[in-house]
Formats: sequence, C-alpha cells, structure tokens
Amino acid sequence: MRFGMVGGGEGAFIGEIHRLVARMDNELQLVCGAFSRDHANCLRTGQALALSEDRLYASYTEMLQQEAALPAEQRMQFVVIVTPNHTHVPIAKAALKQGFHVLSDKPASLNLAEAKSLQQTIQETGLLYGLTHTYLGYPMVIQAKHMVADGAIGPLRRIMVEYPQGWLSSNEEAKGNKQASWRTDPEKSGIAGCLLDIGTHASTLLEYASGHRIKEVCADVTSFVPGRALDDDASILFRTDKGARGTLVASQICAGEENGLSIRLYGEEGSLEWRQMDPNSLILKKQDAPVSILRAGTDKAYLCDEARAACRTPAGHPEGYLEAFSNIYADFVRNAASWPEKTNGFERISINTGGRAMAFVEAAVANSQSGEKWTALMDVAE
Amino acid sequence: MRFGMVGGGEGAFIGEIHRLVARMDNELQLVCGAFSRDHANCLRTGQALALSEDRLYASYTEMLQQEAALPAEQRMQFVVIVTPNHTHVPIAKAALKQGFHVLSDKPASLNLAEAKSLQQTIQETGLLYGLTHTYLGYPMVIQAKHMVADGAIGPLRRIMVEYPQGWLSSNEEAKGNKQASWRTDPEKSGIAGCLLDIGTHASTLLEYASGHRIKEVCADVTSFVPGRALDDDASILFRTDKGARGTLVASQICAGEENGLSIRLYGEEGSLEWRQMDPNSLILKKQDAPVSILRAGTDKAYLCDEARAACRTPAGHPEGYLEAFSNIYADFVRNAASWPEKTNGFERISINTGGRAMAFVEAAVANSQSGEKWTALMDVAE
Amino acid sequence: MRFGMVGGGEGAFIGEIHRLVARMDNELQLVCGAFSRDHANCLRTGQALALSEDRLYASYTEMLQQEAALPAEQRMQFVVIVTPNHTHVPIAKAALKQGFHVLSDKPASLNLAEAKSLQQTIQETGLLYGLTHTYLGYPMVIQAKHMVADGAIGPLRRIMVEYPQGWLSSNEEAKGNKQASWRTDPEKSGIAGCLLDIGTHASTLLEYASGHRIKEVCADVTSFVPGRALDDDASILFRTDKGARGTLVASQICAGEENGLSIRLYGEEGSLEWRQMDPNSLILKKQDAPVSILRAGTDKAYLCDEARAACRTPAGHPEGYLEAFSNIYADFVRNAASWPEKTNGFERISINTGGRAMAFVEAAVANSQSGEKWTALMDVAE
Amino acid sequence: MRFGMVGGGEGAFIGEIHRLVARMDNELQLVCGAFSRDHANCLRTGQALALSEDRLYASYTEMLQQEAALPAEQRMQFVVIVTPNHTHVPIAKAALKQGFHVLSDKPASLNLAEAKSLQQTIQETGLLYGLTHTYLGYPMVIQAKHMVADGAIGPLRRIMVEYPQGWLSSNEEAKGNKQASWRTDPEKSGIAGCLLDIGTHASTLLEYASGHRIKEVCADVTSFVPGRALDDDASILFRTDKGARGTLVASQICAGEENGLSIRLYGEEGSLEWRQMDPNSLILKKQDAPVSILRAGTDKAYLCDEARAACRTPAGHPEGYLEAFSNIYADFVRNAASWPEKTNGFERISINTGGRAMAFVEAAVANSQSGEKWTALMDVAE
Repeated sequence: MRFGMVGGGEGAFIGEIHRLVARMDNELQLVCGAFSRDHANCLRTGQALALSEDRLYASYTEMLQQEAALPAEQRMQFVVIVTPNHTHVPIAKAALKQGFHVLSDKPASLNLAEAKSLQQTIQETGLLYGLTHTYLGYPMVIQAKHMVADGAIGPLRRIMVEYPQGWLSSNEEAKGNKQASWRTDPEKSGIAGCLLDIGTHASTLLEYASGHRIKEVCADVTSFVPGRALDDDASILFRTDKGARGTLVASQICAGEENGLSIRLYGEEGSLEWRQMDPNSLILKKQDAPVSILRAGTDKAYLCDEARAACRTPAGHPEGYLEAFSNIYADFVRNAASWPEKTNGFERISINTGGRAMAFVEAAVANSQSGEKWTALMDVAE
Repeated sequence: MRFGMVGGGEGAFIGEIHRLVARMDNELQLVCGAFSRDHANCLRTGQALALSEDRLYASYTEMLQQEAALPAEQRMQFVVIVTPNHTHVPIAKAALKQGFHVLSDKPASLNLAEAKSLQQTIQETGLLYGLTHTYLGYPMVIQAKHMVADGAIGPLRRIMVEYPQGWLSSNEEAKGNKQASWRTDPEKSGIAGCLLDIGTHASTLLEYASGHRIKEVCADVTSFVPGRALDDDASILFRTDKGARGTLVASQICAGEENGLSIRLYGEEGSLEWRQMDPNSLILKKQDAPVSILRAGTDKAYLCDEARAACRTPAGHPEGYLEAFSNIYADFVRNAASWPEKTNGFERISINTGGRAMAFVEAAVANSQSGEKWTALMDVAE
Repeated sequence: MRFGMVGGGEGAFIGEIHRLVARMDNELQLVCGAFSRDHANCLRTGQALALSEDRLYASYTEMLQQEAALPAEQRMQFVVIVTPNHTHVPIAKAALKQGFHVLSDKPASLNLAEAKSLQQTIQETGLLYGLTHTYLGYPMVIQAKHMVADGAIGPLRRIMVEYPQGWLSSNEEAKGNKQASWRTDPEKSGIAGCLLDIGTHASTLLEYASGHRIKEVCADVTSFVPGRALDDDASILFRTDKGARGTLVASQICAGEENGLSIRLYGEEGSLEWRQMDPNSLILKKQDAPVSILRAGTDKAYLCDEARAACRTPAGHPEGYLEAFSNIYADFVRNAASWPEKTNGFERISINTGGRAMAFVEAAVANSQSGEKWTALMDVAE
Repeated sequence: MRFGMVGGGEGAFIGEIHRLVARMDNELQLVCGAFSRDHANCLRTGQALALSEDRLYASYTEMLQQEAALPAEQRMQFVVIVTPNHTHVPIAKAALKQGFHVLSDKPASLNLAEAKSLQQTIQETGLLYGLTHTYLGYPMVIQAKHMVADGAIGPLRRIMVEYPQGWLSSNEEAKGNKQASWRTDPEKSGIAGCLLDIGTHASTLLEYASGHRIKEVCADVTSFVPGRALDDDASILFRTDKGARGTLVASQICAGEENGLSIRLYGEEGSLEWRQMDPNSLILKKQDAPVSILRAGTDKAYLCDEARAACRTPAGHPEGYLEAFSNIYADFVRNAASWPEKTNGFERISINTGGRAMAFVEAAVANSQSGEKWTALMDVAE
C-alpha cells in the first residue's frame, strides 16, 4: 500500500522509526510527505528518501488536496501522523474528511473531548483510524492477553503496571533537548507531561492485557524538577470494572532507568509478568508449581496463534522494539487492505483505545488536584 | 550470653529460626524456656534442646520469677519473645519489669497505643529492647542506607517498596494452616492482617534505607479471599517528611510469588535497587554511566565498614535470610554485652522502629476506611 | 543500491531474513532474483515481492548474464547468495567474474581450499566480497572488541565461547525438516555439520572480539543422534597466537537450549561477557570494583563511536537479531557505495574471516579423527 | 555429639566456617582442639570458644591420645580436620587408628596413592570418614541428581561444568596472602594448585549430579601468573563411563569472577542447569515446553524428599553456602549417631569421592604434561 507522512523531518526521532518499521514487512511504500513546516527541511527529508519532488508538500492541507486529486492507483492510501501531540487531531480529521485512512502516533489527542470529536469523524467517514501503541505489538503481550482471557491464572485480583524512565531527571528542556521541550510544554502536550507521554502506555497496556477497564483512580501527580511546567512523576491507585485493584506508576525522573515498562497480573490461581526490556519472555507463576517462562519464537507451538504470528524468527533470535512496532503497522495494513470489509484483531490500535487513555489522564490529573479520594473515569463509547 | 525463650514450641516456625540464628555466632546460650502454654509441648521442646528440666517453665510469668531468683551468673540475661502478635507487649513489659532485656519478634505490638505504652516501660526500666526486623540485617540493605545517607544518589524523590507473597491466595486458614490462622484472626493480629504481618516489613525497610519518615498515606486496603476477616492486600501512596513520594504494596494474594520484598530508591542523581530474593547484590544506576552491581562479601573493599562486617564469607558464597537474621541477633547481643554503656548502631531494632510501624498500619487502615485522601501518621517520639 | 538474490525461494528461512534486513536501512532495492531451481517457485517468490517478471531468472548463470547486459543504471549492483552451503563458492565466483560484488551468507565455502580459491578470484577481480556473520553486527560485540583492543581488561589469558542449540536433539532430518536435512547432508555441508553451521559463528566471534587468532585446537567432535551423518556436537580446547587459551563448545543436541551463543574474555585486569540472547548488555568485571553493565543505545555516550552508530534507538528499546543483521548489510553497502575507494571497517565480513573459519573447522575435524593432541590451523593470508 | 578440631586457629578461614556450620543444627558440641602448631594461638582460639583449657592440645597426636584416655561419655566422638592439604591424610589415619571417626575438609589427600592408603585404613578400622564437599549439600544439587537418576531429562549426552574464580589473577602469594600461599606451594598442595583446590569441586559435582564417572580426560593445564609454582587454570575435555562428553573448566585467573561454580547437564530429552551463586533455583529446559525453574523451600511439594529435607525455610527466604555446608555436617552426624549400623545417603562425602577426585587431578596433570590425547583415570574401588 502507498502512504504519506505528516511530520518526521530532519531531527525528528519517531518519524524515522515509523519509516523504518513501515519498510520491514514489505507491504508499504512511502510516496509523499509534508515532513516539516520548514519546507527546505521537507525537501531535504524527501530527497534523502528518494521521493518524487512534486510529492513533497508545503503543508498537510496541501498534501491532502493534491493527493486526493491524483489517480486512485497513484495516490497515497493512508496518512501517517508523527507530529507533536497537539496537532494529531486536526490533521487526522482533515485526512479522514479528505477520504484517507489514518495511522497516528500516540496519544490520539490532548484530551478526552478531542478524542470524542475525532471518534465522531471516524464514524461519519467510515474510514480506518489506527494508533501506534507500540508495546501492544510485542508477541508476549499478545500471549499474556490471550492467557488471561483464557483463564490461565483465574479471575484477576491485583495488577501492577509501571513505567519508570530517567531521562527527564534534570531540566533537559532548559538545555535545548528538543524531545524534552515539546513534551514539557503545555501548549503542545496539554494538561499532562509524563502522564500523557508514558502514563498512557501504561494504562493502555493494563487494559489491553487484562481485559479490564480502569473504573476509578486515586492519584499523586507531581513535578520534581524545578521549573518544569508539567508533571514528571505519577503514582496512582486504581480499581477496575471487574473488581481488580492495583498500582500504576509512570515517572520520568527515575534517574538511571531506561525504558522500564512492565506489567504483573495476579489472578486467583497464578500470575503473569512481562517486562519490555526483556520482551521475549513471559513469566507464569502458579502457587504449587515451578516458575514457567514462556518464550517468543516462530517455533514455539505452545504460544497462541496470534502471538506466534507476531514473531519473525525462531526462539533465541531476539526481537525487539522495532519488530513490535512493525507488528502494529502490519495489523493496520492488513485491515486497510481488506477495507471496507474490516477484519477483527483491530482492538488494540483503535480510537477507543486512544479515548480511554485520555479519560485516564484526565481523571488522574483531576484527582491529584482535588482533595477527593477516588475519581471515576469518564465514559468512552466502545 | 544466656537467654530464655517464650513461645517456639513444637510446630512453631519462627521460634526454631530464632534458636538457629542464635547459635550461629557462638555468643549465646539458650538456658530456659516457656515454649508453650501446653506444658507437655514445652517439656518435649526443651528436652529436644537438651535444656535442664527445672528450667522448662509452665508460663512466662513463672519463668520470669524463677529466673530472677537464680544467682546472677546462672540466670538468663535476656528474653526472646516468639509468641503470636497479641502477646508481645504483655510479655515484654513483664520481662522488663522483672529486670530482663527483651528481644522480640516483630511486630512490637498490635497498635500504636500498645507500642507507646511499651516504650514508656522501656524508658522507665532503662533496659534494652530489640525487635527482629530480619531484613534490616542484610549487608546490602545496610550498604544502601549508607549510600543514601552519603549522598551517592542525591536527595531522594521517589521510593518504591513492595512485598508480594502468594501463600494466602486461597483460604488457608479454613484448611487448618496454623500460620495462616493466627495471622488472619483479629483477636491475635488486631486491626490488620497483611499490613501488620508484612506491610510493616516494607514500611520499616523504607524508613531505614531512606532515612526518611513516612508523613502521610493514601491507602486502598482490602481482602480478596472470601471469608477472610482481615486484609490480605494493600496498595498505598505515601509522602515523606523530606519530600519524597512513592508507592508501597503489601499483598499475600499474589499467587505464585514467594517472598518478594524489594525496594527502589530514586534520587536526583541515581538510584539504588535491592531485592530480598537476590540479597547479595545492590544495583546502582546513574543517568550517564553503566549499571553498577555492588556485591556482598568480606573481600569487598568498596563496601562500607558496617556492611562488610555483616558478611561472613568472601563474595560468591551466597549468604541469606538466616545470616541476616543472625546479624540482628549479633547487634542486640553486642549492645546487651556492653549495657548499660549502650553503644550506637542500635537504631534498626528499637521500639521506635516498632512504634513507627504501628503508626503506619493505623494510618493506612484508617485512611482506607475513610473517604479522606491523605492521612497523617501519628507522632512517635524517637 | 540495487541487488539481486540467488536462493531464498518459498520455504527458505534465511532468504526471507536477508530481504527483511535489506529493507531496514532504506538504501537497498531488490531488483532481480534466481530464487529457486524450481522456476515456478522463483516466479511466485518474485511476484510476491512485486519484482518485474523479466528479472526473475531460471538460474543464477542466466541472471548474471542478463543483468550484465542491462544498462548500468538499471542492472543490479551486487548479488546476495542465500543458497545451501555447497553452492556458495561457485555462485560467488561466477558473480565476481561477471563483474558483480558479492554478499554471501555464511559459511563462505565448504572447506579451506574452496575459500582460498574464492579469495584468489576476489583479488583478481578487485571486487567486494562480504560474508553475513550476523552476530558481529551487534553493537555490544563491537563494543567488546573495542574495549579489548583498548586494553580495558589487559592482555587476554582465557577465552570461553559456546554455542549451544537444542533443535537437532532428535533426528529432525528423518522427519522431513528441510533446515535439518541439508545441514546434516555431507553433500551439501561438506566435512562438518554442527561445526560448520554454528561452530564457525563461535570461532569467528572469538577471533573478532579478541583480536587473537586461533593457533591450534584439540577437539572432541561427535554425533549423538543415531543415523546422523555429520557431527552434532563439538568440545574444543584452543590456544591463540597471542598466548590465550580456552574452550569452544558448539552443539545442536543441547535439548532445551535456543540459540545460546556467548563469549567470555578474561584479561589480566578484568573480564567481558556477552550473551546473544541478552544482546544489549555487555558485562565488565574487575577484581576490585562493582560489576559494570554497559548498555546499547544511541544515548550512551560511554560507548565507542562504532558501537553507538550500530544502534537505532535510545537504551531500553530492545534491538535484536534483525538489527544486528541489518548492520552487516549496512557495512557492506557503505563499502560498495564508495567502491573502488574501499573504506575501512570491513574486516568482520571479509573472505579472510570466512577462510579462517574453514581452517578452524578443518583443524577441528582432523584433530578429532586423529590421535594427536594439538592440530595447528592452516594459514590464511590476510 | 562431641567433636574435636585439628587446625582452624586464628587467621584461618575454613576452620571458622566449620565451627559456624557445626553449630547450626544444634546436634554438635566442640569439646577440644589442636588449633595450631603455635600453642599460644591454639590457646587463644580455644579460650575465645570457651573451651576448657585442659582440652586445648599442643598437637593432634597429643589430642588423640589424651581424648582416647577420657571416659567415653566425655571424650570427643569424632575429629574435624581443617589443616592445609598435605596433612589431611596423616591426621586422618592417626585419628582412625586411635578409634575416632573423621570429618575432613577437602581434598581428602594430595594424590591417589595417599587416598587409597587412607581408604585402607578406613576399611581396617571400620570407622566413619566424611569429606566436606560443601557444594553437594545444596538442596537443588540434590534435586538435580534425583531428577537425572529419575530419567527426567533422559540419558545424558553432554555435561558442562565450570568453576571460574578471579582471586589469583595476580601474584597474591607474593603479597603475603596466606590463603594464596599454601594453595600455590607444591609442598603443601602437591602436584596441582587450581585443579586440586577447585577442579576437584567441579569433578565431584559432575560425578555426583550425573551419576556418571569420568573415564578419560584431555587437559590443557597451565599457570598464567609469572612466578607461580602450580597451575592456576585448566581446560579439560572428558568422556564418561556411560557415554557422555563435555568440558570442565577450573580457573583462578578469571579476573572479576567470584565463585562461579556451575553445572549444565544435557540429556536426550531436556537439560538441567544449576549455578552456585544463585543456588536456590534449578533450571529445567525441555525442547517443546516453557523453561521451568524449580525452587528450593520447605513448602515445595514438587521437590524430592531429600532435597526438601535439606531446606530450612519456605521458598523465598534465601539459603546459601553456610546452610549447604551445614547439610554436609548433618549428613555425617546422622551417620555417626547411628554407627555402626551405618545408614544410606552417605555417598556424597565418602573417601571414594575423595579418591575419585584425586584420580581426576592426576589424570589431568599427566595428560597435560604428555603429548597423548586421552588419559584414562585410575581405578578407585567403590
């Protein structure tokens, strides 16, 4: 399939990653881009990618219009959005209205109202919208979800999710770190910093793997680094719709930590543990049995079909972040290729997922600023 | 030194452990006991230990009186208390009043009022009182405390302590498990089950290693197993007197977990991590350096003196729970041997430690039962 | 750059991997193929890859001739060889003689004579020849080599390399496993099975990381599975040209093992350890210091330039086998793009590397079959 | 039971360890000692242990004579030998001839001839002789032996044992390190240094856990540190009486390593792995199943009876080196207490074990000095 990209010019991190993973499965061709509001940057980026110059656009609006005017067999078939957070919704809406499917980097929006508004546009246009929550693309996350749903550890009681990072332990934004700057700028990131940036990964992983929905939260959200405008640390108690409880931690001031997303799920009969930095293992513990470590790999007959299909190599050939990301792309492309007969398996990258993440962020921020103990999450139609 | 024991008859777990660790450092001699209210059990226990029959007592009151009447060079010099929780304070008070130092299993008491009352008796008698918080005896916990105090990771911002166990995942108390029965019985354990049994280990480790005091808590305390009278699971947010925040989890329904006490301390410049099930390693992470793993061992010159002195063998010869426990004994005995010129280094096993643990439990239980967000811990004189 | 592929039709494992990693860095375009001697297979494979049908060739000889006849700006610029081992050399020679650079899957050849003969063709044509020893593409392998060369652990004394796999623990070749069949067939794999297949990975990693050359070996090579024609297990003592000694183990009957290649290098002042299944960590141990774990990542300033450049993401985003493989491709392409001004940094994928591996296999097999204790490796010009 | 000790005066390492572990299980009483040839040292050591001064002897010969003259209910019942290696046999023989059981630190002797001679004395006297091969006392080593014998992984094919240490990486003996001095002195350690000191631990663990006997070896034994009189490094290929093959590495110049004894056993159907520095876990891998980690603990019903009985605490309370050592003592004491009706379960600490270790050392040294490839181990009657 052919796609265009908004954002991802020189100096951007995530745009380059998107292009890399889009190449991995050989189904996709980047045909156009509005890579930067700085057109010279856009041109340099596009040339380095060997794109035709007439398809390097000055703005996303121009791109949408011009591409729509091309013959069907030439024009892009979907748009990838890798711009700063505050522009995700306007670009997505414009693309949908112009008739293009959308694959957006997370978060879907800056807040729940935006997400709902976007959800309405998606429903009106009947087009596809996908969200790249990378970590849901790991085979062993898929396996964990499968085993929980399958009753392998019994009904869940306790869930522990955490996402410690250390890279914002000091005032990076004041040192000119571009990644740090927009993430800590309320204009570009909205009501939350760390919570929006990585807290949403944690809440999304929690809901995906458990099959539960967070019902209410009790949060202590703060900013430790002097001068920082948005939160860099959050500790949250939660309760789910199906009676589980637990803690969710998201922090970017955990000095020395790299990218320590993890989840532990405790059911009545056992538990599952997955750690993003050791992603090819899934630990199963039962009360009266040896610890069991399930391993990713195309040769592992004991994995569920969906997990095994998300592997590319036999066990022992480590796959990682890029492969997980590529699985998200593959999932979107499979659905786009068969559109409008949309297939199943699309739950993990939908606008509902994005909306739920926003409801989580809003409830956590509101709770932390109030004196109330528990704050319920707003409804998101699913 | 000579000591007597109250509790620890046949079928008891912790009494046998106390006797084992008391033997390890060759300074101690068990000379008498009131091992059980069932005198036949007491006699069998004492005989198996080769104690003189005339020093196997029918009750602790008899033991205290008879021993006090013996010549100084024969009578026991301190009492070890290993009875169920609700009897710790009355026995400790009686022993102190009869002129004996006391070494008590944890918790010190069932609640803060009891702890304060005991604290008063200790002050009045001027005798020694020690509390066997085993986990504070590990060399690498001592090293962590030293490094934090020394500024190795800068002022603390976030602390994460957890203590997951799985052994109460089902209704063990209904199956006749003696260890489970008294721990879940409000008469013997007071206002809390899991919080008192292992939550106090977590809070004590937190305060010991960090040098901070928990100022206020926000708790979600519950019981998952049907029919259980006391809590078996607690998730807690806390803030400390010096501005750190974090989460404390104590749970006995984490099916598949063994004894997973751990602590992570995040300062402005780095972090420390210690896990009880891998106790001879202490992980130091700094933002711009390789991960560093400090290792226990008598040959490790980079350890602080107190940590190295708590080791018995060169690195690579694993030491564990019993050795840590024995270190607590050794600390008490060193102090008792030099009494009344009490030495330093006694902080970790004092009644203040016990009182702070009670203040923590009471605040957590009260907060969880109320609608208020934060509950301050009651003062404990130090 | 444009390339063609020989081998890699439907059902092949490594051809698909080559195509995947060739796409990852966006420099390469697959333009033609002789994917199978079964032309229908070749056509299906090429169509699935959206190749032009007139560039799907019936044989590699046809491909070489036809492509050579195309205009320079259209024709392929190098050939990738992913056929069974016994055809590597004839195809490579033909390609070189037709004027194409060659990138070959390992091993370079079936024996040392073949490798030398190929080496001569390479010298005569002056073209580039690369060998995809994947494991040398891992950033932390590059870092290990750098640190050893830099004296970080002093002159090497002991080296331990091992490569345990379990997948040939039973007679897979008798069950129709295609991967197993050609690897255990003397016609296709020559004088050795396991030694050629993975022993060469071990010896190559050893020589690359250490900078030493294996001087002599003492080997115990055997086949445990009844009916297997070639070795499936080898234990080898070795001594290097610079005075180090150690053990090399390669085995495919280590039931339960996945792909456990690892190396440990012991110098006078410290040691380094790397494990392929946890590839983003490199462990440094010194006698009087904490254990140090270096981590891969674009943000790790303490890595050497070459290692850091081999990373795509910040630390904590696991990279794996495919990324390492892609690094080998990138290295070849960098050199091919600047040919004939060949750059440095090409050592790890040269014919010399392939020749040394053959000398190792031949010496090990000869030694194991003889009664002599030590067998010297044949010279390979470098 | 009552015992006396030869060796273990001030400054000794292993003597103190023996006394500590002897106390752990409450069955033993140290009643006398010839702790040092320096009688002042002996007196100070004995006084610190609160021994009666008339039982602190000037020499072991005096101790044996005097103790034999005491009434049966007072005199020691066995002798513990913790002197340097070259004196083990003469002391053991004298003790046996005087009518005392013997528990000796390893190695049993300096060579096979000595071991055989000692074996004869044991047979003639009919008394008990035990050898403290500590590592055989770990519960998960016992479990591994049980599972191999039980066929859990099928007939063994490959065994890998290694024992890397780093403490002799430099010339410690020249710096006055007492532990280093006698271990590298041919007069006190005989024909081998590292091989005798730790190679025997490796070979003994290999034979114990596998149930195989080493039939022949091919060895590369050397000394890396200039000026060292005995070997500090050995790489060995071996074949067993039941057809398994593998490698055994023992080295004391692995800079940075602590005490890394480990064993991996590969059978036709699976494998077992145990590592001394993580002793409470035993890893079981099967070709088509998740990795399984068995854990030590009194509460682990899946362990064999003998392994579980070797634990003192529930899983998750780490036990280590001292507890394993104490299990060896307990085994000896159980047998001594029921002597002359000797019980089973004594295999792992017998003179046969010691003799086999000597046969291994002699064969390895002889092979390494010769040009022959394989050297058979001498017979040891069992």
